[in-house]
Amino acid sequence: MSLVIVGSMAFDAIETPFGKTDKIIGGAATYIGLCSSYFAKDIKIVSVVGNDFPESAMNMLSAKGIDLEGVDIKKDGKTFFWSGKYHNDLNSRDTLITELNVLADFNPILPESYTHCDFLLLGNLSPQVQKSVIEQLKVRPKLVAMDTMNFWMDIALEPLKETLKLVDILIVNDEEARQLSGEYSLVKASKIIRAMGPKYLIIKKGEHGALLFYGEEVFYAPALPLEEVFDPTGAGDTFAGGFISYLAKTNNISFQNMKRGVIYGSAMASFCVEKFGTERLQHLTINEINERVNKFVQLVRFDLDEVAELA
Amino acid sequence: MSLVIVGSMAFDAIETPFGKTDKIIGGAATYIGLCSSYFAKDIKIVSVVGNDFPESAMNMLSAKGIDLEGVDIKKDGKTFFWSGKYHNDLNSRDTLITELNVLADFNPILPESYTHCDFLLLGNLSPQVQKSVIEQLKVRPKLVAMDTMNFWMDIALEPLKETLKLVDILIVNDEEARQLSGEYSLVKASKIIRAMGPKYLIIKKGEHGALLFYGEEVFYAPALPLEEVFDPTGAGDTFAGGFISYLAKTNNISFQNMKRGVIYGSAMASFCVEKFGTERLQHLTINEINERVNKFVQLVRFDLDEVAELA
Repeated sequence: MSLVIVGSMAFDAIETPFGKTDKIIGGAATYIGLCSSYFAKDIKIVSVVGNDFPESAMNMLSAKGIDLEGVDIKKDGKTFFWSGKYHNDLNSRDTLITELNVLADFNPILPESYTHCDFLLLGNLSPQVQKSVIEQLKVRPKLVAMDTMNFWMDIALEPLKETLKLVDILIVNDEEARQLSGEYSLVKASKIIRAMGPKYLIIKKGEHGALLFYGEEVFYAPALPLEEVFDPTGAGDTFAGGFISYLAKTNNISFQNMKRGVIYGSAMASFCVEKFGTERLQHLTINEINERVNKFVQLVRFDLDEVAELA
Repeated sequence: MSLVIVGSMAFDAIETPFGKTDKIIGGAATYIGLCSSYFAKDIKIVSVVGNDFPESAMNMLSAKGIDLEGVDIKKDGKTFFWSGKYHNDLNSRDTLITELNVLADFNPILPESYTHCDFLLLGNLSPQVQKSVIEQLKVRPKLVAMDTMNFWMDIALEPLKETLKLVDILIVNDEEARQLSGEYSLVKASKIIRAMGPKYLIIKKGEHGALLFYGEEVFYAPALPLEEVFDPTGAGDTFAGGFISYLAKTNNISFQNMKRGVIYGSAMASFCVEKFGTERLQHLTINEINERVNKFVQLVRFDLDEVAELA
C-alpha cells in the first residue's frame, strides 16, 4: 500500500550527555521515511529543503526506495535547522537554535502521483499545511494519521482543531494530550480529544510506553527498558513511522492490527535512540527488527491460564 | 501458606484535590494485610499501636482472618500519625505532620507462632527493625520481600545494605531505585541493586506500571489507565501485598508466577486509589478482583501470530 509522509527535512545539531554532533540530517519526514522503508514499499515524502541539503542524503533516501518527487528543493534557500541540548536524564531538552529557513513559508504542492495514496502521515507541521495536504488528495486514504505539538496549540489552536476534524488518528505525547484537552488524566484527555475528530488516539509516554485509545478500549504498549538512551531525537517520529508503515504493509486498519503497529513503532523507536540522529535507522536488518519485536512480546507476556481464578 | 507482614499501623489524615479526611486508619501493615486477606489464608501482622488505635479497626482486621497476636498495643503510647497533602497531579505530595509516637522505639518481638512462616513481607520500617525480624525466624521462609524508602538511604544506608543481603526481593519505586543505585537508567540500577543481595527486584512506577527484574529477564506490567485517582495513599503497600499474597496463595515462587503476582498486585493497587484510605480494600469481592485482573490481560494483549514476521 502507498504511504505519503508529510514533514520537515532538517539539519540537527544535538548535544547529549554522551557527546555532541555537528549538523547532521534530521527532520520528521527523514526519520519517518527511513523507518517506514523497512515496512512499506511505496513511500512518498512531501517536504522542503534548501540548496544546502546534501545530495548524498537524498540519494540515501532514494536508495531505500523512497519517492522524493514531493520534496521541494529551494535553490535560493537554506534548510530548516534545529539545535538542542538534552539534560542529564534525557527526558527534557533545551532548544538552542531554531532557524525555520525554507520551512517558514512552506506551501506544499502534491505531485499528481501522490494524490491517490492509501495511507497518509502528517508529521508535525503547521495545522494549515497539514490541512492543505489533505485537501489536495483526490481520494480519501484508508487512514490519515497526524502528529502535532504544544507550539501549535499555543499559536494556532483554532486551525489545529479544524485539521483534527479531518484525521482518523492523532499521535501525541502525554504533555501534548494534557495541553490539548485541558485534562491531567489521560483517560479523560483521550475522550475530549477524540470528541474533536480523530476516532483513534495514541499517547506516547517516552520511556513509559504508549497508549492506544479507541471507543471504550485501551491498549498499553510498554517501552523496552534500555540500559542507555544515547539520543532521543526522532524517537517519536520513528514510532509514528513504524506504526503507520506496519499498517500499510499489512493493509489492515483493525484495532487488533493497530496494537501490532504500536508494538512495531515502539520497537523501531527503541533502535532510534541507540545512536545519534538517523544513524541506527539507516543500517537495520530485518532480523534485528524481528528480534526486537520478540523482546517486546517477552517483556509483557504473562499467562494466567495455569492458575484457576480466585474462588 | 503462611504470610507474616511487618509494618506500621497508623492514623493518616489525607488531603487530595477531591477532598480531605480526618484521622483514618492507615499504615503499611494495614494496607498489606487487608489486601492479602483476599489471597492468603494464614496472615500474621507484626506491628505496634497506641492506646488510641480503635478496637473496631482491630476487629475489622481480625474478621478478615488476620492474626494480630504480633501487634503490640502500648497502653501508654499513641499510634503513629501521618498527615499529607497531594498536589493536583497526585504524583507528588507534601508531608504536613509526622508523629512517630510508639513507632519511634519499635522493637518487635515475634510470637512463637510467627517464627515458622512461609512468606515474609517487610514493609517500610527501619532496616534494623527489618533485620531483627528476619533474625527471629527459626526457619528461612520460601521468600523474603522488603520495601524501603529514601529516608533510610539518607540516614541508615549501611544498615540498609546489611538487611538487603538477607532478602530475596526488594520492592521500591523508581526514585528510590535511582537513589539506592546512583544510576538514572533503571536497567543499570537494577543490576547494581541486585548485586547488593536481592536476586529479584520490582521497581514501581506509579501510573506507569511496574518492572520485575531477575537475571537477564525483565517483565513490564502496565498500570491500568484510570479516569480518576482519588487517593494514592497505600497504593504501593497494596501492590506489595497483592504480589506476595498471590505467591503465598499459589505457593509458587517461579519467575512466571511472580509475573502473575505483579499483575495481581497492580490490580489491587488500582482498587486502592479509588477511595480514601483503606475503604475500597475493605469491601472488595472476588468477582471484582477477577474482573479487574481480566482488564489487565486485555490491556496488554496483542497477537503477532496472525502475521508473518517481516521478510
